[in-house]
Amino acid sequence: MSARQINVTYRLETSGDIAALAAKIASDQSTGTFTELPNETADVRARCAARVASITPLPHSDTPAIPDPNGHGPYHRADVVISYPMDAVGTDIAALVTITIGGVYAVKGLSGVRVMDIDLPPEWSCHPGPQFGMQGSRDLMGVTDGPMIASIIKPSLGLLPDATAEVVAQLCAAGVDFIKDDEKLMSPAYSPLEARVKAIMPVIRAHEDKTGKRVMYAFGISAADPDTMMRNHDIVRAHGGTAAVVNINSIGYGGMSFLRKRSELCLHAHRNGWDILTRHPRLGMEFRAYQKLWRLLGVDQFQINGIRAKYWEPDDSFVQSFKDVTTPIFSPKDCPLPVVCSGQWGGQAVDTFKRTGGSLDLMYLAGGGVHGHPMGMAAGVRAIRQAWDAASTGQTLIDYAKDHPELAAALRKWGDTSQ
Amino acid sequence: MSARQINVTYRLETSGDIAALAAKIASDQSTGTFTELPNETADVRARCAARVASITPLPHSDTPAIPDPNGHGPYHRADVVISYPMDAVGTDIAALVTITIGGVYAVKGLSGVRVMDIDLPPEWSCHPGPQFGMQGSRDLMGVTDGPMIASIIKPSLGLLPDATAEVVAQLCAAGVDFIKDDEKLMSPAYSPLEARVKAIMPVIRAHEDKTGKRVMYAFGISAADPDTMMRNHDIVRAHGGTAAVVNINSIGYGGMSFLRKRSELCLHAHRNGWDILTRHPRLGMEFRAYQKLWRLLGVDQFQINGIRAKYWEPDDSFVQSFKDVTTPIFSPKDCPLPVVCSGQWGGQAVDTFKRTGGSLDLMYLAGGGVHGHPMGMAAGVRAIRQAWDAASTGQTLIDYAKDHPELAAALRKWGDTSQ
Repeated sequence: MSARQINVTYRLETSGDIAALAAKIASDQSTGTFTELPNETADVRARCAARVASITPLPHSDTPAIPDPNGHGPYHRADVVISYPMDAVGTDIAALVTITIGGVYAVKGLSGVRVMDIDLPPEWSCHPGPQFGMQGSRDLMGVTDGPMIASIIKPSLGLLPDATAEVVAQLCAAGVDFIKDDEKLMSPAYSPLEARVKAIMPVIRAHEDKTGKRVMYAFGISAADPDTMMRNHDIVRAHGGTAAVVNINSIGYGGMSFLRKRSELCLHAHRNGWDILTRHPRLGMEFRAYQKLWRLLGVDQFQINGIRAKYWEPDDSFVQSFKDVTTPIFSPKDCPLPVVCSGQWGGQAVDTFKRTGGSLDLMYLAGGGVHGHPMGMAAGVRAIRQAWDAASTGQTLIDYAKDHPELAAALRKWGDTSQ
Repeated sequence: MSARQINVTYRLETSGDIAALAAKIASDQSTGTFTELPNETADVRARCAARVASITPLPHSDTPAIPDPNGHGPYHRADVVISYPMDAVGTDIAALVTITIGGVYAVKGLSGVRVMDIDLPPEWSCHPGPQFGMQGSRDLMGVTDGPMIASIIKPSLGLLPDATAEVVAQLCAAGVDFIKDDEKLMSPAYSPLEARVKAIMPVIRAHEDKTGKRVMYAFGISAADPDTMMRNHDIVRAHGGTAAVVNINSIGYGGMSFLRKRSELCLHAHRNGWDILTRHPRLGMEFRAYQKLWRLLGVDQFQINGIRAKYWEPDDSFVQSFKDVTTPIFSPKDCPLPVVCSGQWGGQAVDTFKRTGGSLDLMYLAGGGVHGHPMGMAAGVRAIRQAWDAASTGQTLIDYAKDHPELAAALRKWGDTSQ
């Protein structure tokens, strides 16, 4: 039997004793239950018992993360590492999340719990990981260096297929590398996936014939039923499409696993639904832990918000997410392409560049920031490229805008003077 | 186009204006984004725009559910109903959760959000729902009335297949109707599913040959990969098994959808992982909303904790869950069998009976409460049946225990004098 362990770090909070809580979790999540068991022998424990590997105290809190109407503080806090034997868990993701995460969330006596990280042994490199990742994405888009500039069909919902294709033509002409369906668009009655694919792909091909540039279009293929999702995948592939938007939480580990084994498309992951697991800093899960599972399952491109996002996420959290997805789990091949998005219009390029260590290996995805540019979509894309040129050459946006009217117009409309 | 709506009720909390937040959610989750869009025409809005249907104010809170270090109260609260056109969503569960739940969790400017209910129009009755449910479970177990008494293999992890089969023999002899693998047990190296099935099913059959009673055994078939899960399903079926434990969150909507379409087994759902979505009363989701999706997907038996659970859940929450799963969505056929569990040993039978409206249409699942009984497993099962006899005949446990020594012993070990 292997002596390898899976080490999971939890940030625990309790008005009781942290060490007792940690021990209870290790017992409940492996060989124990609420009462002593005659069959919990030394053999059984040697094979499968989890153990508390370390407890690192943190400052206590006067208030609980989860309301505790009958209790009172101080609420003790610590980062606790629990080691699970590989024999107990194996390499299945459903087993991992059931044993090391799901049950822990149910434990009585805690007022806060957050999964901080999951440290997986080399056996876990058996998972497929990304099929395309960063380099495969570059190859498919023909973008050899610099950020990949991307946009989204807007409005998110409501356009008929032909109207969508018109927007695609405008975005292609505007010079984007990548276009995607909004994550909310899958296959509604007014825009069934097949009709949309048939309307859009000729536009993509016509643009390629004219310019030599093949824009990557990611179609919303998600469906709760994996068979439906695979039919959607096959429709996209049959019409020459190269990518798909996948709402990873909405299809689940099962949907993603099923798709990745069969996929010929570059899989662009939207983590819609994730936020409720991470917004409260003392509950849920760090993105660091979460993203590992989806990368192992095969996400090629991972949306991670951006600086000054339109969503709730603070900049520091985005910066950490960027670092997380670009840090190999087992090998650089398991890194997806980071997709910087949410309320982006170019004005965040300099700060993004500075705060992510000067990386240009990213997709920069702007919906409203392209569609809403006062001089039109082409100007919106040019403004974004100008902003990245400024960033990568160490100039400020304000200076660079002096002889770049599109960037200047974007700054006037959305500008933050801190730029 | 259909005029039908999907109505989702959110409990929102914000230091800003509730009506403005509600309007922003309706816009963001359908046709709008952070800036005005030239293509968001009246046609597009008529087809897909969500609208705020009602706002019911709640008392404000001085503290935010999610820490708000740069803000201050009062935090305004309300139950807000947003109506989504069926045309925008369709009948796919991935589309429903992406549009009506996932994106809402990401909205900036809220300090609390909880999905309270999802009201689905009749088109949604297209989903398969339970294949067996309550009556099918009774038929397979041969239990025509009264609660189905069930146990779990303990220790949860670590027993080799032969040792597991010995426990199964003991539990069969003890008189249970149903036995299950612990949710944490799937197919680890020391107890691969096939070896476990091959060790256990002859014991089940031998017991049937001897007594005429076919105990239902639910094997842990969950796997992140639906193909693996189906192979597991087929192994169970090939050896005459009738049921499976499914960790619904660990396989996701995709895994469950895939399985249900092909399943010949009674699917016993464990909601491991769910707790983090519901423990904080002002965040996440009510069980009422959550369970509807999994019932439509086909859960036959649904674990919902119990009175005085070993997990965190308060009794009132369990009582509401019992009501939720026994309330038809579209028809009584979409109701699963409620599985009352977690720290159960019989002592909760009277309160369970009283608080769930005198229902005996339930499974009562006891792990440690059977295994840890001081007179052995058979006495543990007898004690539980005695407790339910007391409950259903309006007697107190203490009175009933006077001439029922097994119940008396259980009360002495685990008893709560409030019984």
